[in-house]
Amino acid sequence: MKIEAVDFFYLSMPEVTTEADGSQDALVARVAAGGFVGYGECEAAPLPSIAAFVCPMSHGVCRPVGASVLGQTIATPADIARIAALVAYDSMDLLQAAHTWSGVEMALWDLLGKARGEPAWKLLGYERSHRKTPYASQLFGDTPQETLEWGKAQRVAGFRAVKYGWGPIGRAGVKEDADHFMAAREGLGPDGILLVDTGQIFDEDVEAAAARLPALEAAGALWLEEPFNGHAYEAYGALAKRSAKVRLAGGEAAHNAPMAKHLIDYGGIGYAQIDCGRIGGLGPAKQIADYAAAKGVTYVNHTFTSHLALSASLQPFAGLEGHRICEYPVKPKPVATAFIANPIARDANGEIAAPDAPGLGVEIDEKSFRPYLLDVEIKVGGRTLYRTPAV
Amino acid sequence: MKIEAVDFFYLSMPEVTTEADGSQDALVARVAAGGFVGYGECEAAPLPSIAAFVCPMSHGVCRPVGASVLGQTIATPADIARIAALVAYDSMDLLQAAHTWSGVEMALWDLLGKARGEPAWKLLGYERSHRKTPYASQLFGDTPQETLEWGKAQRVAGFRAVKYGWGPIGRAGVKEDADHFMAAREGLGPDGILLVDTGQIFDEDVEAAAARLPALEAAGALWLEEPFNGHAYEAYGALAKRSAKVRLAGGEAAHNAPMAKHLIDYGGIGYAQIDCGRIGGLGPAKQIADYAAAKGVTYVNHTFTSHLALSASLQPFAGLEGHRICEYPVKPKPVATAFIANPIARDANGEIAAPDAPGLGVEIDEKSFRPYLLDVEIKVGGRTLYRTPAV
Repeated sequence: MKIEAVDFFYLSMPEVTTEADGSQDALVARVAAGGFVGYGECEAAPLPSIAAFVCPMSHGVCRPVGASVLGQTIATPADIARIAALVAYDSMDLLQAAHTWSGVEMALWDLLGKARGEPAWKLLGYERSHRKTPYASQLFGDTPQETLEWGKAQRVAGFRAVKYGWGPIGRAGVKEDADHFMAAREGLGPDGILLVDTGQIFDEDVEAAAARLPALEAAGALWLEEPFNGHAYEAYGALAKRSAKVRLAGGEAAHNAPMAKHLIDYGGIGYAQIDCGRIGGLGPAKQIADYAAAKGVTYVNHTFTSHLALSASLQPFAGLEGHRICEYPVKPKPVATAFIANPIARDANGEIAAPDAPGLGVEIDEKSFRPYLLDVEIKVGGRTLYRTPAV
Repeated sequence: MKIEAVDFFYLSMPEVTTEADGSQDALVARVAAGGFVGYGECEAAPLPSIAAFVCPMSHGVCRPVGASVLGQTIATPADIARIAALVAYDSMDLLQAAHTWSGVEMALWDLLGKARGEPAWKLLGYERSHRKTPYASQLFGDTPQETLEWGKAQRVAGFRAVKYGWGPIGRAGVKEDADHFMAAREGLGPDGILLVDTGQIFDEDVEAAAARLPALEAAGALWLEEPFNGHAYEAYGALAKRSAKVRLAGGEAAHNAPMAKHLIDYGGIGYAQIDCGRIGGLGPAKQIADYAAAKGVTYVNHTFTSHLALSASLQPFAGLEGHRICEYPVKPKPVATAFIANPIARDANGEIAAPDAPGLGVEIDEKSFRPYLLDVEIKVGGRTLYRTPAV
């Protein structure tokens, strides 16, 4: 099969706010080859990501992503790896390329799986897709009372695990944060799995993060996620050594496999959170799943957008039975749910799994793009490089 | 002063080829505040970089660079650092942001220096601008004979140091590469400073790179630059331990200060090569200059574009007397020279220095943009987000 076309659809809510909710827009990539169509989703700023696919070449290693993808043949997973290596080398000076490529790479697994009648996780080398315990992923409330109520609501909704993120944490004092952690525990009940995400708020201030550890431990938090910016390996490493019970989680910002490995090796994280829509797709994510498993680190998906991204994110660790927790966006915006014809539902036990259907196993309803589709037109030197395709 | 406007000019040669020559296009950033104008240059793919400045927000930490810059007040270097921190946090999920911001940050130092009547290196805390030994930076020839001739030509042109890069190295065998290294030495003469850049060709294959060490040592190369991809700290570290005389150089791909520090700490490089047009501008580059000096590592600029970028790249280590070698693009394309009214010329000793004039000390002739200016128009949802400004 020859890759004949790659199209991008920039979908967005009519109004995008400053809340830390990545489901307010979506960039869907569609790949066509050999009569098959595959879909993927970049977890990325749509406009720069489209630009990185269509831009003119700047020099030999600053080529657009499209130059490495269009016209390539694809028959096996090794072809996807080959194209990935081409993108990495020929676009080494195009920073955004990794985010653009991530959605395209996903779409290639989807397409290849459909062509071969096999789920992506099988193509990745797994025998079966184990069920996972989804955690409800949501923001902290503005007040501890709100945090408590939301925890209760998730318990009622059948979630055994809840992750709270961002919001007021780290912006007021240690006491205020502790109140939120305890409220979260209270709302969740004594047996719930409590996960806390502080959204890089401490940058690389180890003391500020460490000051939150006693309350996190008292609240029985399983992990503390992203206390620091994604490059602060030393801060991660120092905090990991100071935390007896609460393990660190991080990795969502990794836009290549080495970044995630470094966070494991130098940062001492206990949970590697990989976003397939950023790290370069399923291939490098699977590398990290293998690496994490070998190092006694638990692999977890990072997903805050659609169930297309969710399915993609489940594939790389679908076969790792012991890596059970998975992120499950609970309150995605309508733009992220509208175009998924068959969302990944929780079963009677409240669990989910990567679909057994070919490819990513997610049916995309392109007509449902329409109310959210942003028309984009990019012209350079009088030539139209991109125009939103008709749906 | 309030930042009133940021404009981008995408300049390009009529034809861009796949050679590893970053001077084939340029993205100039112009900032206006308080009646002053500053210029900078992103060492980046122009279209995605423009897109990263003007794109719609995706969520709270995926905002366009423009949102953190426009309307900000600027009076001191601390203001530049403050805006940098804002960009880093509010655009943490926008990968291209670092490249976009790099050119804007440069322009802010230029503007601030002009407003205060001081060169940027003085604003960075240096007492004086020491003279540097420029190395002629060029590609290896297709044949050893070509490599030899080019070395001779640079010697005649008065360069004491020459760096050869990319071309055939690593693409044929160890013997072929050795022939090029020896030809370079022969062309350069016994006293010349020989630098070798292999452009990430060995990815992370330590053995392949190590196989080139004996010939590099025999040719008396001072450094081996970028044997591996910029994230391969382990490969760098392993090779550094195996190289008795030839020290490793790297860092040009660093798009933030931690990346460069990690290459020093984990990769064991002896020369930290920083491109101000990628790392986030002069501020983080100065951090790395300080860090390198403290660690016994030599700071070197990475510059393969215009003398606007060259001046910017000299500022962060202008005051470090012992860090003498600097990159000096010898054969830039006309697009990179046309708009510089006062290029940084070598003195009678063949040396250069960061200018003593206010800001970056480089006069930009906007009229000379015209033959190279690519008209760009970006529309999203019916709104024009960017159109090339008139010059």
